[in-house]
Amino acid sequence: MLTRIDHLGIACRDLDAAIARYQSVFGLTVASIEVNEVQGVREAMLEVSGSPAGHSYVQLLEPLRPDTPVGRFLARRGEGLHHVGYGVTDLTAALAAIGATGVRLIDERPRHGSMGAAIAFLHPADLGGVLTELVQARQVGAQS
Amino acid sequence: MLTRIDHLGIACRDLDAAIARYQSVFGLTVASIEVNEVQGVREAMLEVSGSPAGHSYVQLLEPLRPDTPVGRFLARRGEGLHHVGYGVTDLTAALAAIGATGVRLIDERPRHGSMGAAIAFLHPADLGGVLTELVQARQVGAQS
Repeated sequence: MLTRIDHLGIACRDLDAAIARYQSVFGLTVASIEVNEVQGVREAMLEVSGSPAGHSYVQLLEPLRPDTPVGRFLARRGEGLHHVGYGVTDLTAALAAIGATGVRLIDERPRHGSMGAAIAFLHPADLGGVLTELVQARQVGAQS
Repeated sequence: MLTRIDHLGIACRDLDAAIARYQSVFGLTVASIEVNEVQGVREAMLEVSGSPAGHSYVQLLEPLRPDTPVGRFLARRGEGLHHVGYGVTDLTAALAAIGATGVRLIDERPRHGSMGAAIAFLHPADLGGVLTELVQARQVGAQS
C-alpha cells in the first residue's frame, strides 16, 4: 500500500532560517515554497531523493498564526518532528482500507496538499502517537 | 550528500503491539528485529520501500529499561516520532563535512546500527529540535 516515505514534516519558528540550515548542512535544494491557508502554514519542500517510484522530501512548516495546528504544536512541544507522510498510488482506496482496520481518519476524503498532491491525515491516537499523512503525488504528464 | 530517508524512528512502549499495528494497517513486513544493548532498545525495521539507491524503513523502538534515551523520551513525551535517519554513501566524509558547518556530532565516528549499518547521530539542538541520524548501509555483496 505504501510506496515510499514521501516526506518528513518538521515544525519550525522561522522558515527561512530552517531552509538555510538544511541547505548549508545537508546540501538540500528547495523544490517548492507555498502558503497553505487551510492548514495555516508557510512551508518548503526540500528534496532528499528521487526515483521513478517518487520523491522524498524534508517539509519545513512555519505556522501563519499561533492558533493553527503547527502553532499549537510549537507552543506545546517546541520545534521538531511534526508528522510523516507516506506515498500511496490510490489515496481513496488506501483511506477505505485503513479506515476498515479501525484507524480514525482525520480526513475522510482527499484534500489539497503540497505541490499539487492529494493528501489525507490519519489520527495519531490510533498510530502510536504518530501524526500520519498519506500522499498521492500529482502525476506530471499522466494521461488521465 | 543524503541519498534517501533511510528510516523514521518511532518510540513505542510495546514493540510487538506496534509491529502488529504497522503490519495490519499498512501491510508492512518486518525486515529485522534486534536488541541493541548500547542504545538500550529492542527494535524492529519494517520495510516501506526499496530501490537500487537503498531501502526506507519504519523503525520501531522499545526501551530495554526506563533509564535509556528512548525510555526517558517516552516518560517525557509519550509514544511517537523519535528521530529520522538519512542514508549517506560515505559516513566518515559526511560527518567531517557536517561537523565543519558547526553542527555538533553526538558520535564523532561511526558506530554500530541496525542491520549491520554504520551510523552516527547529530545533535538536535543544532538541527531545529530534530534528532538526526546518518546511516551508511551495509553493502551486501560489495567487493571491499
